[in-house]
Amino acid sequence: MVDIVVFGSVAFDSIKTPFGKTDKTLGGSGTYASIAASFFSKAGVVSAVGSDFGTENMDILKKKGVDLTGLALMPGKTFHWKAEYGHDINSAKTLDVQFNVLKNFKPELPEEYKNAEFLLLGNNDPEAQLNVLNQMEKRPKLVIADTMNYYIEHKKDKVLEVVKEADICLMNDGEARMLFNTPSLLKAAKKIIKLDSNLAIIKKGEHGALLNTEKGSFVAPAYPLEEVIDPTGCGDCFAGAMIGFLAKQGTVNEELMRKAIIYGSVVASFNAEGMGTEKLCSISMQEIEERFNEFKEIVRF
Amino acid sequence: MVDIVVFGSVAFDSIKTPFGKTDKTLGGSGTYASIAASFFSKAGVVSAVGSDFGTENMDILKKKGVDLTGLALMPGKTFHWKAEYGHDINSAKTLDVQFNVLKNFKPELPEEYKNAEFLLLGNNDPEAQLNVLNQMEKRPKLVIADTMNYYIEHKKDKVLEVVKEADICLMNDGEARMLFNTPSLLKAAKKIIKLDSNLAIIKKGEHGALLNTEKGSFVAPAYPLEEVIDPTGCGDCFAGAMIGFLAKQGTVNEELMRKAIIYGSVVASFNAEGMGTEKLCSISMQEIEERFNEFKEIVRF
Repeated sequence: MVDIVVFGSVAFDSIKTPFGKTDKTLGGSGTYASIAASFFSKAGVVSAVGSDFGTENMDILKKKGVDLTGLALMPGKTFHWKAEYGHDINSAKTLDVQFNVLKNFKPELPEEYKNAEFLLLGNNDPEAQLNVLNQMEKRPKLVIADTMNYYIEHKKDKVLEVVKEADICLMNDGEARMLFNTPSLLKAAKKIIKLDSNLAIIKKGEHGALLNTEKGSFVAPAYPLEEVIDPTGCGDCFAGAMIGFLAKQGTVNEELMRKAIIYGSVVASFNAEGMGTEKLCSISMQEIEERFNEFKEIVRF
Repeated sequence: MVDIVVFGSVAFDSIKTPFGKTDKTLGGSGTYASIAASFFSKAGVVSAVGSDFGTENMDILKKKGVDLTGLALMPGKTFHWKAEYGHDINSAKTLDVQFNVLKNFKPELPEEYKNAEFLLLGNNDPEAQLNVLNQMEKRPKLVIADTMNYYIEHKKDKVLEVVKEADICLMNDGEARMLFNTPSLLKAAKKIIKLDSNLAIIKKGEHGALLNTEKGSFVAPAYPLEEVIDPTGCGDCFAGAMIGFLAKQGTVNEELMRKAIIYGSVVASFNAEGMGTEKLCSISMQEIEERFNEFKEIVRF
């Protein structure tokens, strides 16, 4: 039995940044999000990998406490993303994507996942996200969905359906502006609230995150990092730690949501300090708590 | 006797934004900064205007409490800036600049300004900024200097001298990255601290501001605005309200600096809500205090 179901890719990444490179190392939105969530609660990841995935990568996930009942092992190769970050470390240039086993993958939730109370629909095709949501036996307490510009451009109606169905649809500032055709983030946030009548969280990368409810705004800074080594997976870590913290509390309200956003920022900031999942896999819960407390000092006035 | 000397242009602006336009209305960095400072303390502005400036514009400044002893009335026309903001409201496109009376203007401080304890060197040629600083009879308690990308490109050595001489050199994120040739704002901040051995403040526009000391970081959000009507002068309002608040306290330390940055953000956010100085001139100190308190709620977790 898991507390959180994370639907998101488990993959190979080959990444180059000004500070280092990785070659076919463990990556994917499901990987980052489920490891981040596992600091707080029991999370299982739903995806598929190929026969080249290797037990060493399975072991990394298991060691971090991720449940792998929902990870299908399929004939063929594992999804593989190649990308490069330049001087502006905030945007990746995709060099190659090989979908491989994820090309025609139809996610099927294990029976014991269908009653989980927390569901994270990672960056994915909105139709696949809705399909996973529909497989749940009862409506989870909290559904968080992530999105990306590709689907906003190509499947806008379906993305809007996900915004409606989920409790929280995470998007970054560019995506929010694109989806609602406005330069004003606050206007975009209000449109999100109107759609799902709950709350809106807009991620602003190195500038933190904005939470909006009908009552007002919460603005969370990002942790000031001297050097971003590799930002891959930071958005997934943000979402994973957020839902992990909320699942641990067992309930959701605005006060807890504010704390969840800070925990999300904490785990994302650690993740950016190493190549791939390297740093994410080496931090302790104590370090997370320490940086959480540092955030209080960072915003105090 | 004034508490604060503001060196910065008093000018005419003709601005077009997606939300409105102005035609030869009161503007200039000295105007915005001295009005913002005057909410808190007695400020005088040092600049020159031409015979076309008109008593109605003098009256606007006087009504807001700005001392005009240092404002020279010269034969010729007032400095005139024409600019346009597009969909991305954060960057202005300059359409025309007529320097007019400011072309060969050599600022001369009135005697009674030379003992002021607070000095704001607005956006200007760094040599003129140093010239004004050198006219002070004793070193002020606090010297804040603003800069802009043009001078970083064309007079980098002099800008670095201003950074060294001033207690705080304000720059925005792009300027800091350019001046210290690094994508990392925290690295740039550390280089500023190394130069003037004090503290660094980097403005991030709609993303707020970063204060760095040797002890650590303070990250201030910007006030979430639904609509930015006209961002002209927001940076000057930020600097003016900051130094105004600090002059009112009569002393400077990190705790007060954090509050000063929030007051700066508050006044800048109001300024952005109207065309030109329209909104800045209509707000009350009570409204400023209310929004200051709102900021506490915005960052609370």
